[in-house]
Amino acid sequence: MNISIIGSGNVATHLGKAIHRAGFNILDVYSRDLINAKALASELQARAVDAISALGAADLYIIAVKDEAIVSIAKQLNAGDGIVVHTSGTIGLDALNTCSNNPGVFYPLQTFSKNKQIDMYAVPICLEASNASTMKILIRVGKAISKNVQELNSQQRMHLHIAAVIACNFSNHLYVLAAELLEKEGMLFELLKPLILETANKIQSISPVDAQTGPASREDKVIIEKHLEALKSNPQIAELYRLLSASIAERRMLD
Amino acid sequence: MNISIIGSGNVATHLGKAIHRAGFNILDVYSRDLINAKALASELQARAVDAISALGAADLYIIAVKDEAIVSIAKQLNAGDGIVVHTSGTIGLDALNTCSNNPGVFYPLQTFSKNKQIDMYAVPICLEASNASTMKILIRVGKAISKNVQELNSQQRMHLHIAAVIACNFSNHLYVLAAELLEKEGMLFELLKPLILETANKIQSISPVDAQTGPASREDKVIIEKHLEALKSNPQIAELYRLLSASIAERRMLD
Repeated sequence: MNISIIGSGNVATHLGKAIHRAGFNILDVYSRDLINAKALASELQARAVDAISALGAADLYIIAVKDEAIVSIAKQLNAGDGIVVHTSGTIGLDALNTCSNNPGVFYPLQTFSKNKQIDMYAVPICLEASNASTMKILIRVGKAISKNVQELNSQQRMHLHIAAVIACNFSNHLYVLAAELLEKEGMLFELLKPLILETANKIQSISPVDAQTGPASREDKVIIEKHLEALKSNPQIAELYRLLSASIAERRMLD
Repeated sequence: MNISIIGSGNVATHLGKAIHRAGFNILDVYSRDLINAKALASELQARAVDAISALGAADLYIIAVKDEAIVSIAKQLNAGDGIVVHTSGTIGLDALNTCSNNPGVFYPLQTFSKNKQIDMYAVPICLEASNASTMKILIRVGKAISKNVQELNSQQRMHLHIAAVIACNFSNHLYVLAAELLEKEGMLFELLKPLILETANKIQSISPVDAQTGPASREDKVIIEKHLEALKSNPQIAELYRLLSASIAERRMLD
């Protein structure tokens, strides 16, 4: 099976390397920027191209580019019966209808950074396909690089993306707000790092409901009022504090 | 130096063991429940007592009990010139004025669970004392068990606690909300665990501001609207989604 990678960013790089390592043959690597295409292609023993029309005939094309570029690439690509997948959590399967009779989604649920190693084998791969034979091939590729391969429909994938935004993007924003508060009071964010790591570690082995601690979960109104008073000069953070505390308290009452 | 531990819960256990391991002599372990006192005391080669009045004369008493019990214990204890510290992030130094001429705070910033090992050496110890000679002794004990010992005043400690509530208790609540969403759509929370861990891992080496990703940070209004539409049946989560996205977007504009 010949696989071509469209894109040369973080997702393309991490996926391409994992698939290459698993023993699949990478045919082409496309990037608008030939230098980037060449850099990744050389690691994958593949050919570098900087035009969609220059891509050879592959069995599977993986479009791993920014969401907003997927449609424009799909318009240029003509894969016929070749499978075309994108790697986005938010774009529907139908975005690929124009370029392939066998569209699919190959969505790795992880945040990839350029110079940071990721244990790809632990990254869940979420699959969707328009037909069973396509799904079979995607499962084969998925299982070769990850221990956690899931079939999800578009509706589920969207909700998974929302859940990821809430649990990860928003958590990171809470780290940002905490860092701001500490800095204002002459303390370093450094102080919180072990606690943040342990908070994420804890829910690897116990459920987040059981892991919940803090003033709101023990209904400590005295402390909550003290904190809101201290956040007076920070009305936006105070509002978030109030809402999140109320949301915790509400779930506690449902127990 | 003789040290006595008042309490037998998670904080008392983790701290007591670390201090014992560092070579200090533990004199007494107090718990209302003699069985609990004995269990911890036997690990610390100490004497178990179940009455504050039965405590021997120690150089340092560490009150590691729930916040609401600190004042009542402080009323019963008469340490004279012996140092008395509590381990709370939220209680002031003055709560100990009645029981010692040398009150202090010895606050380990971590979430402790009974059966979970913690690398105490990585846990920041936040210290406060009413005088320099007390502080000197607390620093000595702190540095023997942790590589990160900080002197903080009560105002700073309160803000540190607020920051910890925001970064950790609230993050955990976001995990709870994400788990609810996934369950509703027939998916397992399992799926998010690697992403949550990587989110906490990332900010160990890069700043949370630089680590911020997601629809709000790239001002992807189309996705945000789609998500809010999908959250319609969940107005409380939708409201949090809106507020947190606005807070992210605002900080982005300040860049």
